Amino acid sequence: MIEVLRLNNRIGRDPRISTHVALTARAFGVSRIYYSGDKDSSLEESINKVTKKFGGSFEIEYTKDDVKLVKEKKNKGFLIAHLTMYGKDFRKYKNKLKNKKLLIIVGGEKVEPEFYKISDYNLSTTNQPISEVSALGVFLYEIHGYHNKFKNAKLVIVGKERGKLIKKI
Amino acid sequence: MIEVLRLNNRIGRDPRISTHVALTARAFGVSRIYYSGDKDSSLEESINKVTKKFGGSFEIEYTKDDVKLVKEKKNKGFLIAHLTMYGKDFRKYKNKLKNKKLLIIVGGEKVEPEFYKISDYNLSTTNQPISEVSALGVFLYEIHGYHNKFKNAKLVIVGKERGKLIKKI
Repeated sequence: MIEVLRLNNRIGRDPRISTHVALTARAFGVSRIYYSGDKDSSLEESINKVTKKFGGSFEIEYTKDDVKLVKEKKNKGFLIAHLTMYGKDFRKYKNKLKNKKLLIIVGGEKVEPEFYKISDYNLSTTNQPISEVSALGVFLYEIHGYHNKFKNAKLVIVGKERGKLIKKI
Repeated sequence: MIEVLRLNNRIGRDPRISTHVALTARAFGVSRIYYSGDKDSSLEESINKVTKKFGGSFEIEYTKDDVKLVKEKKNKGFLIAHLTMYGKDFRKYKNKLKNKKLLIIVGGEKVEPEFYKISDYNLSTTNQPISEVSALGVFLYEIHGYHNKFKNAKLVIVGKERGKLIKKI
């Protein structure tokens, strides 16, 4: 089971970034995303709409106290992997993370030092300035693999060489 | 040589998404990004600032006529790969794309039908709603591999288990 925690959502500044983080999490087989910072019901609605249409049981949930959430997850046996450009090369930790109960933390422009301390692993997909959206995508792709089939989908996209094919189920 | 074309940048709506696309391109070894839509000098400045600090020869360039640009690249022997959730599974095309001169096109909320036609390949990292930022990251990671060393860097980040270590060169 893989879950994601997205830190410090800011309604004014990055609603679309949080949407992209959540869509990436869902598309690569994550079961739930938590987010802290500003609560944003339009973010939640747009993600829930996608899940309703395209299937799966992805959930999005606001958390007021992100540090407490991480500690609770740790107590429940989750490994905590914090993605940061300052972390160790994630490829070396692949085998330690595969098939584990995993909570992946992604920033936020701002990440409190506390998260570096309480995480089991601080990992980078590259030690370069990058996007939390692509860092999460690459990390999930490497750890959790390709995903395409989702249960209870109402719409299924069939990959085409040209144009668009959407099947209604 | 890999280049990226980001379609239909919109200053009001997604400056940060275009920044994330460009940072992802740079971090995974792309040499140049073009973008169409709204010209945005603050986008260009912030990307050039990163390159100056962290090295490499990544360039960002505005294009007024994106269709013409794609045609010119085709004439110069580039393969055109358009990333879209409606495309074929990208993993099956890996060998055709590796070590080629490649122009990767990513949307924009809106993508004109023309781009599906003039691209050599319309490819998906998953046939699910996803972010162009993570789609580009996963695609580059798979086709072009891990990147971490950049020439002429003034700042180098050394991956750590805890905290941050930035070396001035």
